[in-house]
Amino acid sequence: MNAEQVLAQPDATGEVGLVVHRDFVCTEPFVFDNGRELDGFTLRYETYGRLNSTRTNAILICHALSGDHHCAGVHSMRDRKPGWWNNLIGPGKPVDTNRFFVVCSNCLGGCQGSTGPSSVNPATGQPFNLDFPLVTIRDMVRAQRRLVDHLGLPELYAVIGGSMGGMQVLQWGIEYPGFARRLLPMATTARQGSQAIAFNEVGRQAIMQDPDWKQGNYLPGEGPRVGLAIARMMAHITYLSDKGMDRKFGRRRREANPGGPPFDIDFEVESYLRYQGQSFINRFDANTYLYFTRALDYFDLADAYGSLEEAVERVDSRVLAVGFTSDWLFPPEQNREIALALLRRWKDASYAEIRLDLGHDSFLVEAPELDRLVRGFLES
Amino acid sequence: MNAEQVLAQPDATGEVGLVVHRDFVCTEPFVFDNGRELDGFTLRYETYGRLNSTRTNAILICHALSGDHHCAGVHSMRDRKPGWWNNLIGPGKPVDTNRFFVVCSNCLGGCQGSTGPSSVNPATGQPFNLDFPLVTIRDMVRAQRRLVDHLGLPELYAVIGGSMGGMQVLQWGIEYPGFARRLLPMATTARQGSQAIAFNEVGRQAIMQDPDWKQGNYLPGEGPRVGLAIARMMAHITYLSDKGMDRKFGRRRREANPGGPPFDIDFEVESYLRYQGQSFINRFDANTYLYFTRALDYFDLADAYGSLEEAVERVDSRVLAVGFTSDWLFPPEQNREIALALLRRWKDASYAEIRLDLGHDSFLVEAPELDRLVRGFLES
Repeated sequence: MNAEQVLAQPDATGEVGLVVHRDFVCTEPFVFDNGRELDGFTLRYETYGRLNSTRTNAILICHALSGDHHCAGVHSMRDRKPGWWNNLIGPGKPVDTNRFFVVCSNCLGGCQGSTGPSSVNPATGQPFNLDFPLVTIRDMVRAQRRLVDHLGLPELYAVIGGSMGGMQVLQWGIEYPGFARRLLPMATTARQGSQAIAFNEVGRQAIMQDPDWKQGNYLPGEGPRVGLAIARMMAHITYLSDKGMDRKFGRRRREANPGGPPFDIDFEVESYLRYQGQSFINRFDANTYLYFTRALDYFDLADAYGSLEEAVERVDSRVLAVGFTSDWLFPPEQNREIALALLRRWKDASYAEIRLDLGHDSFLVEAPELDRLVRGFLES
Repeated sequence: MNAEQVLAQPDATGEVGLVVHRDFVCTEPFVFDNGRELDGFTLRYETYGRLNSTRTNAILICHALSGDHHCAGVHSMRDRKPGWWNNLIGPGKPVDTNRFFVVCSNCLGGCQGSTGPSSVNPATGQPFNLDFPLVTIRDMVRAQRRLVDHLGLPELYAVIGGSMGGMQVLQWGIEYPGFARRLLPMATTARQGSQAIAFNEVGRQAIMQDPDWKQGNYLPGEGPRVGLAIARMMAHITYLSDKGMDRKFGRRRREANPGGPPFDIDFEVESYLRYQGQSFINRFDANTYLYFTRALDYFDLADAYGSLEEAVERVDSRVLAVGFTSDWLFPPEQNREIALALLRRWKDASYAEIRLDLGHDSFLVEAPELDRLVRGFLES
């Protein structure tokens, strides 16, 4: 076991505790699905817990569109923002870091340390920007496989992820049959539908029509902040639900602002959305947003393999697909369909539907039913 | 009967035929809900069919956010675009212009000939822009009442409308009890919910953050075309449904464009949305979009009258509320709730739910079940 694998230890509070990221620098050439090649790439990642002596307790976590490698614990005493799945991952939690060695990497094409459009192209000394190769979900998974090999993992105990992360989970099962013993895709789809493509297109248009986008050639630290914020505000609505928003915000007003400009913020929900937009532009790269939404749009297992049944034919893992009743971005049916296709090919698959009214983001919230499901699936 | 009332006559094809609009210029002062006053206003309107001798066969049609006064027939041999509800309104159609005298006006605050933010303020000789008073649904209805009085209509046989038009229908019933004998609100709500406000806010932000918006002071013919197109593209998705879009567009691709710019149109649904955005900016004023979306957001009958039951207490009309199963902008429940509140106050109300998978826009499409429902309600 090397040093990086024991870095993240539970602290006294029962949390993963302070974690630091590591960079995996792959110097082998990497050929993208579209035929383009890079001499190598970097994946930034974090690990939590200890690898066991047989190296068989590793769980890979795959992140969604706006996520990153920081899925559990906190980075430093100054940056106390916990990882995005901290409620699910940690000592004694459903993904129990006392028992499992958990790995999560920023996806290829990302902007949080992994190689992506904002990275410097060694050939030019300038950021790749739109010269970065188009990235697919399968590219992300094949890059993750190199990291997994680098960590010396002969197999994965499980691969877990929601939304775009769930697509990666499915692709792992198809690309490397049997390598992961368990697959746990949530709030996802085997095939991006028309409505989801449409929302992504509006977001991309908001970014690309912003004069500061400059055909993708904005300088580091600059870029289409207005367009990216609008894309994020709109997308954020699709992550919630009508009922959830009515419960959380309803028609509550902020303090009246009679002297203020017309059409300024009035309802709480407007203030919340603007905050979501503004905080996003400080942590996310607009070009990565274009690349990742296209990766989502092009994800269609049935088209790639002839049919969904043929796609899952190679899967040799136990699969639990999880849908959420109020998720209208990747509705329950689309998750159930994954399990049904597997069952039609006599695979070990099941489907669970969780009744939560928080929309697509339900997979990210603390919910006893989801906790029990994940814990049970990992113990099985 | 005056000349304007007989202008639109059925032609040989069974359509309303060529129609021309009229301008009703009201020279009486008008006090808006927010206390601001204008010396008068203009409403542009169309009529179809003939007023009967007792003047009791008039039906008022109320339009939605992006609609206008041109709801049936065609304007000229050169402009063959039929009215937006031409499938429902015409000789022998459910709103039968052989039998009814149909009136439809562009709402106060609009941009298709009625007084709105793009109209010239007589006091300054410049467009009102954001100096136009904030418009409410009730303001729209009270302006329409002046037109109805001008036309010499002692009562209305019915008031019909969907979406924002449905809100006006409800407000007509409350504001002028018994004046309309029948109210037919469709695909609407008595209270704009949090999600609908959120989508409107993103649209407004897209407009207001466009540098060409210029704090609302763009010149006539100019304006935030990019922002307005993005607002429209996004809103258009909310008018459709997941299933409807999958059936209409699925994941169909346009011709491959390998030499084209990256992230250009690839899927049919993207092309459709961009067309919707582009055609909208040529016919709609961005400031009116701000005003109308705010009118929607502020519509809350329960808040305005204490409760929904108290709001509908004054209604003295037969009411049929119609919801559409796939409408997720103003879901069926919100339409059923209107009828239930009326029934709790022993009003003559019913609710019909139509199974169509075209989303919010279902009320605009030709559907035998809706036709029968409207015809039956008007014959009752």
